[in-house]
Amino acid sequence: MSGVIVTNPPKADAKDVEALAGFGVATVSEAMGRTGLLGPDIRPVQQGVRVAGTAVTVLSWPGDNLMIHAAVEQCGEGDLLVVTTTSPSTDGMFGELFATALHRRGVRGLVINAGIRDTQELREMGFPAWARAVSAQGTVKATGGSVNVPVAIDGQVVRPGDVILADDDGVVVVPRERARETVGRSKAREAKEAASRAAFLDGQLGLDRYGLREKLSQLGVEYRTFEEYEGERP
Amino acid sequence: MSGVIVTNPPKADAKDVEALAGFGVATVSEAMGRTGLLGPDIRPVQQGVRVAGTAVTVLSWPGDNLMIHAAVEQCGEGDLLVVTTTSPSTDGMFGELFATALHRRGVRGLVINAGIRDTQELREMGFPAWARAVSAQGTVKATGGSVNVPVAIDGQVVRPGDVILADDDGVVVVPRERARETVGRSKAREAKEAASRAAFLDGQLGLDRYGLREKLSQLGVEYRTFEEYEGERP
Amino acid sequence: MSGVIVTNPPKADAKDVEALAGFGVATVSEAMGRTGLLGPDIRPVQQGVRVAGTAVTVLSWPGDNLMIHAAVEQCGEGDLLVVTTTSPSTDGMFGELFATALHRRGVRGLVINAGIRDTQELREMGFPAWARAVSAQGTVKATGGSVNVPVAIDGQVVRPGDVILADDDGVVVVPRERARETVGRSKAREAKEAASRAAFLDGQLGLDRYGLREKLSQLGVEYRTFEEYEGERP
Amino acid sequence: MSGVIVTNPPKADAKDVEALAGFGVATVSEAMGRTGLLGPDIRPVQQGVRVAGTAVTVLSWPGDNLMIHAAVEQCGEGDLLVVTTTSPSTDGMFGELFATALHRRGVRGLVINAGIRDTQELREMGFPAWARAVSAQGTVKATGGSVNVPVAIDGQVVRPGDVILADDDGVVVVPRERARETVGRSKAREAKEAASRAAFLDGQLGLDRYGLREKLSQLGVEYRTFEEYEGERP
Amino acid sequence: MSGVIVTNPPKADAKDVEALAGFGVATVSEAMGRTGLLGPDIRPVQQGVRVAGTAVTVLSWPGDNLMIHAAVEQCGEGDLLVVTTTSPSTDGMFGELFATALHRRGVRGLVINAGIRDTQELREMGFPAWARAVSAQGTVKATGGSVNVPVAIDGQVVRPGDVILADDDGVVVVPRERARETVGRSKAREAKEAASRAAFLDGQLGLDRYGLREKLSQLGVEYRTFEEYEGERP
Amino acid sequence: MSGVIVTNPPKADAKDVEALAGFGVATVSEAMGRTGLLGPDIRPVQQGVRVAGTAVTVLSWPGDNLMIHAAVEQCGEGDLLVVTTTSPSTDGMFGELFATALHRRGVRGLVINAGIRDTQELREMGFPAWARAVSAQGTVKATGGSVNVPVAIDGQVVRPGDVILADDDGVVVVPRERARETVGRSKAREAKEAASRAAFLDGQLGLDRYGLREKLSQLGVEYRTFEEYEGERP
Repeated sequence: MSGVIVTNPPKADAKDVEALAGFGVATVSEAMGRTGLLGPDIRPVQQGVRVAGTAVTVLSWPGDNLMIHAAVEQCGEGDLLVVTTTSPSTDGMFGELFATALHRRGVRGLVINAGIRDTQELREMGFPAWARAVSAQGTVKATGGSVNVPVAIDGQVVRPGDVILADDDGVVVVPRERARETVGRSKAREAKEAASRAAFLDGQLGLDRYGLREKLSQLGVEYRTFEEYEGERP
Repeated sequence: MSGVIVTNPPKADAKDVEALAGFGVATVSEAMGRTGLLGPDIRPVQQGVRVAGTAVTVLSWPGDNLMIHAAVEQCGEGDLLVVTTTSPSTDGMFGELFATALHRRGVRGLVINAGIRDTQELREMGFPAWARAVSAQGTVKATGGSVNVPVAIDGQVVRPGDVILADDDGVVVVPRERARETVGRSKAREAKEAASRAAFLDGQLGLDRYGLREKLSQLGVEYRTFEEYEGERP
Repeated sequence: MSGVIVTNPPKADAKDVEALAGFGVATVSEAMGRTGLLGPDIRPVQQGVRVAGTAVTVLSWPGDNLMIHAAVEQCGEGDLLVVTTTSPSTDGMFGELFATALHRRGVRGLVINAGIRDTQELREMGFPAWARAVSAQGTVKATGGSVNVPVAIDGQVVRPGDVILADDDGVVVVPRERARETVGRSKAREAKEAASRAAFLDGQLGLDRYGLREKLSQLGVEYRTFEEYEGERP
Repeated sequence: MSGVIVTNPPKADAKDVEALAGFGVATVSEAMGRTGLLGPDIRPVQQGVRVAGTAVTVLSWPGDNLMIHAAVEQCGEGDLLVVTTTSPSTDGMFGELFATALHRRGVRGLVINAGIRDTQELREMGFPAWARAVSAQGTVKATGGSVNVPVAIDGQVVRPGDVILADDDGVVVVPRERARETVGRSKAREAKEAASRAAFLDGQLGLDRYGLREKLSQLGVEYRTFEEYEGERP
Repeated sequence: MSGVIVTNPPKADAKDVEALAGFGVATVSEAMGRTGLLGPDIRPVQQGVRVAGTAVTVLSWPGDNLMIHAAVEQCGEGDLLVVTTTSPSTDGMFGELFATALHRRGVRGLVINAGIRDTQELREMGFPAWARAVSAQGTVKATGGSVNVPVAIDGQVVRPGDVILADDDGVVVVPRERARETVGRSKAREAKEAASRAAFLDGQLGLDRYGLREKLSQLGVEYRTFEEYEGERP
Repeated sequence: MSGVIVTNPPKADAKDVEALAGFGVATVSEAMGRTGLLGPDIRPVQQGVRVAGTAVTVLSWPGDNLMIHAAVEQCGEGDLLVVTTTSPSTDGMFGELFATALHRRGVRGLVINAGIRDTQELREMGFPAWARAVSAQGTVKATGGSVNVPVAIDGQVVRPGDVILADDDGVVVVPRERARETVGRSKAREAKEAASRAAFLDGQLGLDRYGLREKLSQLGVEYRTFEEYEGERP
C-alpha cells in the first residue's frame, strides 16, 4: 500500500462545529435520523467531557504510527484526529507526546479505532480521547498509509473535514455538508426532548404522549393480571 | 411475537428489600450458595453506588424500546427496571427521559442487558444503571414484547417482584420467596467474613483458618524450594 | 494436576523495583525493546495508581481459589500477587479478605488474569488491582494448583521474583535479572521523551525530528491536494 | 452450592418429539412466535444432522464434570443431554467416553454451553453434539451441582423433559406442555413456507406477496434513481 | 430513518466480474495494494466455493428483514446481495426462501454482516453465502432502511455495482471503476506467485528470492546458536 | 525490537514424536496432568487430521511476515512451524507459497496464533494448519522479530524443539525433555480409557466405576423426586 497524504480538504464551518458541540452525541445522531454513530466499542478514556472538531483522518498499518506523524502536520486549530488501522489492532499507537504536539496546534482531541497509552497523562493535560483499547504496546514507523482519505469505522464513513462530536455516550460523525442543517435539527430535537421531559416530570406517560396504547393493541400485545398469566403458562 | 403485559405481580416484601440493600452483591450471592449472579458483562455506569429494588421485567425486540414505555406504567415506588432483548443488542434503548419518568415514580434504578445512553446525565441525576453497553444508538417503537414475564439473563431467571441488588461488583437476583431467608443468611455470611477479617488482620492465614493444609496434602500439592524445583524442571 | 508450591524464589533487588516504580508502564516496555506487556484485557479497577512489586505467581484451577490461600503465606513485603487460571475464567477469585491479609504482609497489589470482586472495598482500602473481569461469583477450594512457578499470560512469561509494574496503561513484567539494566534504559528513554516533548512544545514536527519525510518518500507515500485526490478517485 | 439430582421428571410425549424432529429449528422457532432459540454461539460439531430429544439438564461447576456422571444415570431412550456451567467455561467437559455411555442408553445427542472434546470420534460414532467451544482441556470431579433442574442458557429456560431440537442452524427448546401444539403450528408454518417457495419460484416478489409496498410507503421509504440519489447526497 | 431505494445503479462490466472470479480473494486484495477486504468475522457457510457478482446493497434495522424484500426486486443476473444492519445483529435475517427468489433471478450469492439461517438448505441448493453468524432467529418487517446506498462493513465501503468476490478466505470488494485494472493487476500478481511457487519448489528461499537477508541485517536481527542464546538469556 | 534467529536448537527425539502422533491431543494433555494445551481459539482449517512435529518458533510483528521467511531456512524434516505475534493480529500472514516451501522441506504443518489464508489450497495440498483466524489480509516485511526463541501462546510456553501435537480438538505442546515419559503416560491413559469404554459399553456407570456416589454424598448433593423438588422450589 503506497498511500497518499491529502492536503487542505474542505472543512465544516467552524461556527457549525461550535454549535454542534452544544448538543449531546445522542441528540445529534437522532437529529440525523439515528445515523452517524461509531459503534459502542470506542470508549472515552475520561469522564464528563464533550468535544467537537473537524476530522483529520489517518489510515495506518497495524502496529505502526508513522502516518500519525504525517497527520500532525495536517492538523490545525479546531481539528480532531481520527485514526484507524487497515486491520484490527489494539496497540497503543498514540500517547502523550502526540497529544502534546496536537494540543499546541489547537487540536481538540482524538478518536482512535485502535489502542492508546499514557491515559493518565492525557487526562491530566486535558486532551480528550476515545479509543477501542488502552495498551502500552509501542509501535514502529515502517509502513506507509494515508492521511485525509475517507475511512470507514464501525459502519460509518468519516471524511476529512467532517464534524466529529464525542462525549461519554460515544462518537458521532456529521458530514461536513450537513453540519448546518444538523444544528437546526438538533435544536428541534432538543426542544422536543425538553417538552417530553417536562411532561414526564408532570407525570404523563410515554404510552399516552406518543400514542403507543393503540400501537400495542395493533401489535396484539395484551394485558393480563399475574394470576391470569400464571394460569395460561405451561 | 404478540407479547403480554402482566399487571400486579407479587413482590418481595419492602422491608426485606431494604435489608438486602445493606449487603454487598458478593455477600448475598454467597449467602444463596453462590448463585443468582448476572454475568460480568453487565457493568455499572457509575462508581460506588449500591441499590436494591423489586424487578419489573421487560422483554424487547432488539433496536426497539416500545415495551419500556409500556413498563413505565407498571413501575412504582421501590421497583427496579430490568430490560433484556430477544436477541443480543447493544443499542441505547434507555436514556435520560426514561430515567426522568421512572425517577418520579420512585424507581430505584435500571439493569439492562443491552445498551444505555445519556450516561453522564444519569450520573448527574443520581439514577443508577447497570448495562451491557453504552451506545447513543436510538431505537424504534415498532415491535411487540412483554412486561413482567420471567426473563433469563446470563444463566439467571429474573421474575417480576424478585429482588435485584446491584453494586460495583455486578448484579444479583434474589427470588421473591427467598428474600427473607436470604437476609438472614447474608447476616450470617457477613458475620463470618467479619471474623475472618479480624483474624487476617491479626495475622492468621487462610491455610490455617480453613484447614487447607491438609486439603493441599490430600490433593498431592507438594512444597519445593526454588532450587529443588529448578532441578526437577525440564 | 498435583501442583507444587515453590518457596524462597530469588527476587529482583528492592532498590531496582523502587526505581522502576518511578517510570510509566509504557516507558519501561519501550526500554525493554517494546516487550513485556500483558495484553490490553487486564485493566485496573482504580484510576491514577502506579505500583511495582516482585511477583508471587499463582496457577489455579478455574472457579477455585485454594492456591491463593497457599500463596498468601509465600508473600511478603514488596511482593505483588500475580494470579492466572489453567483455563479462561471470569470468576471473582479474589476479594477484600485476601486483600486484607496481603495488605498486612506488605504486598503492593494484585494482577489477576481472571475475575475480582469487592472492587469498591479495594479502592477504599487502597489495595490496587488489575483484573480481566469484575465478578461477584465466588469460588471453591477443591482442586490443586501451583505457587511460584512460571506462568504465561497474554504472551508473556512471569516468573516468581520478576518485577511487575502496573498503571492505568496496563501491566509490564521485567525479568528479575534485567531489572537493573532496565532502570538505566528507562531513564534514557525518559530523557529522550523529555527532549521530544520540549521540541514538540516548541513546534517541531515528528516528521522532521525523526527524519520521517524521507521514509515516507521511500515508501511511496505521496502528497496530493484534495482536488487532485478527488480527481483520481474512482 | 450443595445441588440436587431430580429423578423422574415429566417428559414431552415421544410421538410429539418424533414429529418435531421432522421440522427445522427455524421453522419450530417461528411456529412458537420466534422464541425458544439458544443463541448463535452454540454450534454443531458436525454438519447436516438434525435431532430431537427430551432434555436431561445438568448444571455444573466450571472445569468440573462430576454432575455429568450423575446425569448419565438419569438418561434414557429418547433423551438429549443439556449441560451448562455456573459461570462461563470453555473446558472440554464431555468426550467420547460419555458419548459411549449415553449412546448405549439411547440418548440422542448433546447440547453443551461449554466445551467438548473428541469431536472426530463423536462424528465417527454418530453421536451429534452442539457446543460453545471445542477444547481438549480435561476437567475434575470435585464440586457439586445439579441434574434435572431448570437451567437458563442464552435467554432461554430449559426444563427437564422439554423438547430440544437441534440442526445446523442451532438449538431450540420447546416447553414439554407446548410440544403437541407446536407440532401443529410447525406444520402450518411449513405449509405457508411451501406456498411462498412455490410463489417465489414462479417469480412473485415478497413485496407483493406480503403487501410490503404499502408498508415501505407508510414508513417513508422512497425510490430514487441513482442519478437523483447522487444529486441529493452530501 | 426514512430510507431510500436506489434504482439502476451503474455496475461493473460483466466480463470483468467474470475475469475476477478466476482469481482468489487474497490475490485480488494483493493486486489492489492489500485493500478491499471485509474482516475475518464474515465466514462462508460452505467450503470450496468461489463466486463473484455485482453488489446490490441493503442497510437494515437490526432484527428486521423488510429491506431485503425491497432489494430482491432490484436484483438481477450476475448480482450478489450484500446486507448489513444499522447496529450489530446476529439474527437470521436471510434463509432459504430469499435464496429461492434470488436464485431464480440469477443472483450469485449473499454476503451478510449479520445472521443467516437454513444453512443446510442453502448448501443443498448451491446458493453460496458468507455471514457473520448462523442463527435461526427470525425477524420482523417493521422498520425502514435503504437499498443500493453505499454501506460500510469492517472498514470497507461497498457501493452498489461494485464487484464482490468471495471464497474460503473471505470477501473482497473491488470498486466498479477499478474492476478492469484489477483484473490486469491480478493476472500480474498470479504470474509473480507462480514464479515464486516454482522457485520454492526448486528449493529457493524467500530470504534469497526477496533479498531479505540484508533487510534482517539492517533491522539488527542477529543469528545465534542455541548455546549462545541460552548463555545470553536472563 | 532487534530480534534474534536461533540456530540448531535441541529437538525431541523423532521416535518419540512419531509415537506421540499415535495419540489424541486430549489423551496427551491428560497424560501430562491436564496441561500443555493451547486455548480453544486456535482451530484447525481442515477436519480429521492429526499431526505431530518438533516446533520451530516464530515471534513476529503484527501485520508482518518477514520472520516467517527467516524461519523457513531453520525448518527441516519433521518440524512443525509455530507462529505468534507480539500483539494480537488476525492478518493472513501465511499462505500457500509458504506451505509449498515448507512442504518441500518435510515440515509437518503449521500452528499460527494469528491469521492464515489460501485455506482451500492448503487443504488440497495436504498441508495441515491450525489458526486463530482465516483472513486474506496480506502482510509486509518491514519489522524484525525472532526465530526459535521460547514463545507464550494462551498460557503455554512453546520452546524450539518441543513436540507439537494437533488434531480436531486443538493443539498441545510437550516439552522436549518430557516427550519419552509422555509417550509412556499416554499409553497408560489410553489403556485406562479403553477399559472404561468397555465397561461403559457393558452398562457400568461412571458413578460406580469412579466411586462418585460417595463423593456426591460428601458434597451434600441430594436426590429428590420431581414432585419433591417442585414442592421445595420458590
